[in-house]
Amino acid sequence: MDYKFINKNLKPSDIHALSNKERDVVCAELRDKILKTVSSNGGHLASNLGAVELTVALLSVFDYTKDKIVFDVGHQSYSYKILTGRYDKFDTLRQKDGISGFPRVSESDYDAFDTGHSSTSISAAVGMARARDINKSDEYVVAVIGDGAMTGGLAYEALNDVGHTQNPMIVILNDNEMSISKNVGGMSKYLKQLRISSGYLNAKHKTEKFLITQLPVLGKPITAAILGIKRFFRFLVNRKQPSMFEDLGFVYYGPIDGHDTAQLIKSLKAVKDLKAPVLLHICTKKGKGYEFAETNPSNYHGVSPFNLETGVKSSGSLSYTSSFAGSLVEIATTNKKVVGISAAMPQGTGMEKFEDKFPDRFFDVGIAEEHAVTMAGGLSRLDTVPVVAIYSSFLQRAYDEIIHDVCFMNNHVVFAVDRAGFVGNDGHTHNGLYDIAYFNTMPNMTLFAPRDYKDLKNCLDYAINTCKGPCAVRYPRGSSCFEDKGALYNDASDVIKPHISRDYGEEYAIVSFGTICSEADKACDELHEAGINGRHINCPLIKPMPVNKLRMLFGDIKKVVTVEEGIRNGGAGNFLKDILDNRYVVSVAAVDNQMIRAASIKEQRIEARIDSDSLKERIKFIL
Amino acid sequence: MDYKFINKNLKPSDIHALSNKERDVVCAELRDKILKTVSSNGGHLASNLGAVELTVALLSVFDYTKDKIVFDVGHQSYSYKILTGRYDKFDTLRQKDGISGFPRVSESDYDAFDTGHSSTSISAAVGMARARDINKSDEYVVAVIGDGAMTGGLAYEALNDVGHTQNPMIVILNDNEMSISKNVGGMSKYLKQLRISSGYLNAKHKTEKFLITQLPVLGKPITAAILGIKRFFRFLVNRKQPSMFEDLGFVYYGPIDGHDTAQLIKSLKAVKDLKAPVLLHICTKKGKGYEFAETNPSNYHGVSPFNLETGVKSSGSLSYTSSFAGSLVEIATTNKKVVGISAAMPQGTGMEKFEDKFPDRFFDVGIAEEHAVTMAGGLSRLDTVPVVAIYSSFLQRAYDEIIHDVCFMNNHVVFAVDRAGFVGNDGHTHNGLYDIAYFNTMPNMTLFAPRDYKDLKNCLDYAINTCKGPCAVRYPRGSSCFEDKGALYNDASDVIKPHISRDYGEEYAIVSFGTICSEADKACDELHEAGINGRHINCPLIKPMPVNKLRMLFGDIKKVVTVEEGIRNGGAGNFLKDILDNRYVVSVAAVDNQMIRAASIKEQRIEARIDSDSLKERIKFIL
Repeated sequence: MDYKFINKNLKPSDIHALSNKERDVVCAELRDKILKTVSSNGGHLASNLGAVELTVALLSVFDYTKDKIVFDVGHQSYSYKILTGRYDKFDTLRQKDGISGFPRVSESDYDAFDTGHSSTSISAAVGMARARDINKSDEYVVAVIGDGAMTGGLAYEALNDVGHTQNPMIVILNDNEMSISKNVGGMSKYLKQLRISSGYLNAKHKTEKFLITQLPVLGKPITAAILGIKRFFRFLVNRKQPSMFEDLGFVYYGPIDGHDTAQLIKSLKAVKDLKAPVLLHICTKKGKGYEFAETNPSNYHGVSPFNLETGVKSSGSLSYTSSFAGSLVEIATTNKKVVGISAAMPQGTGMEKFEDKFPDRFFDVGIAEEHAVTMAGGLSRLDTVPVVAIYSSFLQRAYDEIIHDVCFMNNHVVFAVDRAGFVGNDGHTHNGLYDIAYFNTMPNMTLFAPRDYKDLKNCLDYAINTCKGPCAVRYPRGSSCFEDKGALYNDASDVIKPHISRDYGEEYAIVSFGTICSEADKACDELHEAGINGRHINCPLIKPMPVNKLRMLFGDIKKVVTVEEGIRNGGAGNFLKDILDNRYVVSVAAVDNQMIRAASIKEQRIEARIDSDSLKERIKFIL
Repeated sequence: MDYKFINKNLKPSDIHALSNKERDVVCAELRDKILKTVSSNGGHLASNLGAVELTVALLSVFDYTKDKIVFDVGHQSYSYKILTGRYDKFDTLRQKDGISGFPRVSESDYDAFDTGHSSTSISAAVGMARARDINKSDEYVVAVIGDGAMTGGLAYEALNDVGHTQNPMIVILNDNEMSISKNVGGMSKYLKQLRISSGYLNAKHKTEKFLITQLPVLGKPITAAILGIKRFFRFLVNRKQPSMFEDLGFVYYGPIDGHDTAQLIKSLKAVKDLKAPVLLHICTKKGKGYEFAETNPSNYHGVSPFNLETGVKSSGSLSYTSSFAGSLVEIATTNKKVVGISAAMPQGTGMEKFEDKFPDRFFDVGIAEEHAVTMAGGLSRLDTVPVVAIYSSFLQRAYDEIIHDVCFMNNHVVFAVDRAGFVGNDGHTHNGLYDIAYFNTMPNMTLFAPRDYKDLKNCLDYAINTCKGPCAVRYPRGSSCFEDKGALYNDASDVIKPHISRDYGEEYAIVSFGTICSEADKACDELHEAGINGRHINCPLIKPMPVNKLRMLFGDIKKVVTVEEGIRNGGAGNFLKDILDNRYVVSVAAVDNQMIRAASIKEQRIEARIDSDSLKERIKFIL
């Protein structure tokens, strides 16, 4: 497709001046560009395809150089990026030093707020609206949030707050009946009911007709007549009763068709000057415009490069996620007490396999990590063993709940911490670097970092069937590159001991935690070839740290390097250094710079200096 | 008052068999016992007085040896404790080795779940209800939650989840129009509207009459007729439209009078066998039965010992909290960009002083720490300087938001971290031991731990007026016992440097962070008297750690002890030890056991071995 518009660096006034037909062309061009880029680079597809018309409408009404548009999660911001000066660099999407897959204030003055985690947009927008009101300036503030993100408590806290103080702002509820997977929860049912009871499809045309005929008359004076308008909109959509959002203090308007750019523009113009918080409920289709994604949006949520013509994605090889899922199902077949919990990601965490097999013992709680953890605490009090599978970075949301509702009571809850360590192209907001440090501070917690699939299964088995209190098992994104030479151990109960992985001599010891084991093996092998001979000890148990066993394996060695894929402060090496006596020289290889941005995982390890070459240098330095 | 009932170790069947008149006596006895104990030991008064009838009603309907009653926050559980076997030990309330002020599974088999932080009860109860349904057992599960706690997102996440899956359970919404201070938010307004629109006061009598005449007929068969009953209750309370809770999937019933034990019992019996989640909305008065507390409940929320006859509390001497409040108002008078934020605790954090002075620049967001932080992130993007005052322990709720919505963008947000360190009689759930460790892991964060009021003001000034990114200032509960000998420094910008507080010689150095300074001074002085001469360096800046300046102040000293009032792993000493080279022998004094329970702060410091005597031993050990 030859582009007429999106490659032109359109100014706000250029976009405002487009005709409806031209806007349709812009939308088509955006879809084309997104499809080409994502099929080549990987990225978030279905959510971005669903937000094309909305973005064009927003930019047709608001001034992107001045107004503040906050995209919740940010996985629908590609069109916005392309239209706000980043077309030229868009081919670098998600690559090292390229355009981020999420809004980044460091990337563009037109990105209002960094996002990545769910349900933050309304809070951030409330802050901006209040700052604007204090500063007596006149920026419009808009939050764009999906119905999935609306299951997060943070979104509710923000609605509750601004509904009370009435700072003017617009919340666009982008309702596509999905989080990443099919959306769950009472709110989701309620939205469905709003769509049905409103006679959404018929009302759509009525609304349009009204707005076309009446809009010239409306304008700033409209703001004086909020109540009248509310009543009028309610009439338009045939609703008999106020919505939950109105109960909380919002002006509710909707639902309207989120793929009808002209109608979106008219609606935004109608509500933007209301002197109250407005919730505009729009309905969209995830994956819109690409048949494969429309049919199966959760398969095309976050994707690796794929064939655009056929929709074919590279077949999923065995990964830590699928290995976890298989092991869990196996363990839960014998142990009937096991209950599975996911926070809106049964597919991403592999939990769908558990759900298929044990639907009565599985709960998807929505994008609600805090509730997932506290609920697991409750489950564990009545003789079940909950396994909570959440990505490392998202589990940060439940930091307090893990301490209070699990650890303090010594509740037997097992955390399956997927995406621990670097995640590659999603960038720093999704890296799982904090979990070792925070689990390390929690009372009664047992923390495992298996090195490969077999080890993962053993750790999981031990955590579920042997441990009595809180346990966590951390494992990374992607596939194992560890070459099991078969001798480390065979018995599941061995996971609580450190094991010698390489033994060339006693010049130094390197202790690795988790899958970074492969880098330590490589460093060890290559140093051996260069005539430097040490011992590599892999330790799947991080907490409680098996210090005495490590000391025994060190033998006479007093020069020790530790390596882990997590932040340094509060991490495993940091702890070991604190606890070992002063006769040991301990050098800690861990992640110092936590803002390591999108790149391949290999590049991220090199940047963090925890790759095999960096380890070799570090070992040479302490010798 | 001579007790007839509460001192008798009543079994569930004994309580079930009480007459209405006897129940009134039980309530009077409970109030008497609570008032006597709290006026002598300190504790949570207003919330406990408000929940007396509710507790008696719950225990009259449910079997406390089997059913699960989860008290949100837990500061209303005194009556429950007294009636479930803890009358004899109740005089030890909040003392070392005594009865905890909050539910504790380790204290009694009849406490269903540990609480302390807000908004967890529905989640925990959902977990229990699901475990029960999986186990096919028949416990009743009840969550008791205040309207204040209902502003927390976690409560909403749980409502949303179980409203969808329909596991039977009862949520009792104890609506007293308060969190600790006056409740805020759209939900609060909405509840008020429910009370008014329902004709609550008239309906009360109608309901009662109905239940009295009809109850014998109703029973288990009632469960088949949920819809009919819903309609009927709605008729009773004259409501014309379904409530927000019904929209989320709950059976809503209320509001009813929460001080009418007989009506509460009838209502509980009517709803307990419904095969769906039920929300029972009751209205109570905080402080009920004690005039001073009824008139001013937030003054009698958490209290120190006071005079029962006169209601007189010991006059508030200067505290870190009041010192913070005064300093902030002073700074904000000059710097008009300062905005104050509290999460439902304007009084507890001293922020009410700021609110009085700058109402347009102050926001109380409800019990919503996550939203407080993300909203602050939004405010900071539009040229204001938000100061977020939250207790250390509660700020744990916003761990992820501090990283993502503040630190990653390097937003200039200032965290005023009150109650950092040990808090005394509230016990381990309220100790602020984690903040150093978690701030230490966060990119761009600057962390201060002032030693006294003057230092606190200087740190605050520096954080607000000089720093450009995220800052936190941690300070403890209570008053300063630091004796400023006047020589440490005078200039605000000096807060970024470590300072010599005692200088007797070069045998050892002790580095103190924050107000634990006084213990280090004492240890230093006493060792000096015993002929052991070292140097005490106080360091108000924890992150970035001024390592080079510390090295200079160490001079030739190679034996170093560090001390802080926070957990060891990931803490300040831990970091310093990691970063100093191997020539130094570093011994870290910090809190290893994080479950240090209620006691005086002095006792807690001794138990954690960070008091002056323990420091002396530690110093002698490394010499």
